[in-house]
Amino acid sequence: MSTDDALFDAPGPHEAGGAGWGVAPSSGDDVERVARWFTDHPDLEDRFSAVFRQSLDEVMDGQRTGRYDVSVLEKTEKTYLGTKVEIVCRAAFGLARGEKMDYRVCGVDVDAKFSLDGKWMIPREAMGHLCLLMAANDRESAFTVGLVRIREEILTQGGNQDHKRNISATGRSAIKWLFKNGKLRKNLLLGLDDATRNALENVSAGQSRVDQLFRQVHGRIVDRNAVVTAAKQLDAPKRVRDARHRLAPEGVIILGHQNESPRIAKALRLPVPEKGTWVAARVVPAPQVTDRPQVSIGDASYVVAEPTESRRPAPVIRY
Amino acid sequence: MSTDDALFDAPGPHEAGGAGWGVAPSSGDDVERVARWFTDHPDLEDRFSAVFRQSLDEVMDGQRTGRYDVSVLEKTEKTYLGTKVEIVCRAAFGLARGEKMDYRVCGVDVDAKFSLDGKWMIPREAMGHLCLLMAANDRESAFTVGLVRIREEILTQGGNQDHKRNISATGRSAIKWLFKNGKLRKNLLLGLDDATRNALENVSAGQSRVDQLFRQVHGRIVDRNAVVTAAKQLDAPKRVRDARHRLAPEGVIILGHQNESPRIAKALRLPVPEKGTWVAARVVPAPQVTDRPQVSIGDASYVVAEPTESRRPAPVIRY
Repeated sequence: MSTDDALFDAPGPHEAGGAGWGVAPSSGDDVERVARWFTDHPDLEDRFSAVFRQSLDEVMDGQRTGRYDVSVLEKTEKTYLGTKVEIVCRAAFGLARGEKMDYRVCGVDVDAKFSLDGKWMIPREAMGHLCLLMAANDRESAFTVGLVRIREEILTQGGNQDHKRNISATGRSAIKWLFKNGKLRKNLLLGLDDATRNALENVSAGQSRVDQLFRQVHGRIVDRNAVVTAAKQLDAPKRVRDARHRLAPEGVIILGHQNESPRIAKALRLPVPEKGTWVAARVVPAPQVTDRPQVSIGDASYVVAEPTESRRPAPVIRY
Repeated sequence: MSTDDALFDAPGPHEAGGAGWGVAPSSGDDVERVARWFTDHPDLEDRFSAVFRQSLDEVMDGQRTGRYDVSVLEKTEKTYLGTKVEIVCRAAFGLARGEKMDYRVCGVDVDAKFSLDGKWMIPREAMGHLCLLMAANDRESAFTVGLVRIREEILTQGGNQDHKRNISATGRSAIKWLFKNGKLRKNLLLGLDDATRNALENVSAGQSRVDQLFRQVHGRIVDRNAVVTAAKQLDAPKRVRDARHRLAPEGVIILGHQNESPRIAKALRLPVPEKGTWVAARVVPAPQVTDRPQVSIGDASYVVAEPTESRRPAPVIRY
């Protein structure tokens, strides 16, 4: 032992085994420092939400496959999802490559580890290094992100055939959580009730299914990915424009982010769409006396229709 | 043996082994029939080219990673590439799922098998079934597509740990080739000479690298993917518009598919860009006497500059 060693925590029995790693003197500080680098981003939750939303949507590839449930992915796709998250996260934060691990953050090597179920598989190469632990649960619209230094004592015994091991139940207490229950942007199609989803799946993919989506799903933000997944086609804006024409006789309006849309959405107390998203509603001319929010369009006032009110053609809107 | 068996080719020793499969009576016809279904597409080569180009570009993810060489992909990404080709090919031809294999084509199950090097790994489940064998070589800008029914006698002995086997050298003669040397749309960045590529990589990713690309690469079609890979950013058209402004003082024009561009490209004998592609050239006012192709822009005539001709500002073009 060199004299310097006396400054460190006494190594545990495994660490003394000469495996070539140990708890670095600054390990606790490194975790704090890297955590702070991330938490210094004021939009951190949105950024991670976008990383997971984008990664899940790209691998499900709804535009080609119509899939919106990550549980139906093939094994190779689930494995690849970890790589995709690593790539998208690197781009989202502009991270450099580490010397040995995926990223370099404040001069520290950090490995990216993604898992759908939060059971991260830690490879031997990560021993002694920091890991950015990431998980996303699309059904719960939730994600977790944490930082930990991989040490023998936080891992389970054994390991799988690739010699990867999990973080043990007690080892989890060593994780510095950035988000234990971060808000993942909703997967609209996955969150539909069974009746709505069945009705949707009974219509063949394409424009008709997009029409059906906007005929049924009202008052909720519908994003580009939901549209191309329903269509199994590119060009969501075109699908939406066509749906507007086709649903206008039924009184359905589909508001976007431009022109008259935001004003109408606000007045009707609907969510106001951002670029690349839409919100639909069925409207009827406002009754003479009503408590419902109203909006003037052209010469008349409109309200969101009650289910029992009969169909009236939609007003002409400058979308 | 039933009396029907006499109509078939005599089974080989392995086929008689009761493995539950054998050469179906219509196997030869099935291959021909499925091959004809594909070859009935008049744009078949372009479609397959687009399938491979799209799959390679998506998995390299140049916009986020700057990668343009499939050989640098990680193992999980190479494995996933086969799944991506299966998905993109299914979408390109509108194929239904097979009963047991990936696709159903003219009522026949067909499995999709992609390999970068044309050494397809055949799983046991494919035995007795048709396989659509696909390979793409990005350096050679070439692809192969073939159809074969998987039988014991076309496979190598042994197999890897997943019990997958290759098609043997003699077994390859059983492949019905649709394309032995199909033309894959070029990967511009991969095909650059070393000097050009080094100069490009010495500029940091972003608008400056896009500028450098159009400063150096003249007379060749540059596609959207090359632009976003050089930029490591989205929105290729914006990058190109900015490059036009920044390179105009150097005499560089970047033609697109609209307005004056096609006329100028034709007159200067440059390739004429389709939507989502561009072609650059450095131009100078035409000398009084010249053999070079000329084009009138505004009040003057222009020619493609020789390397020795000094810089003159580019004419104003309605792109």
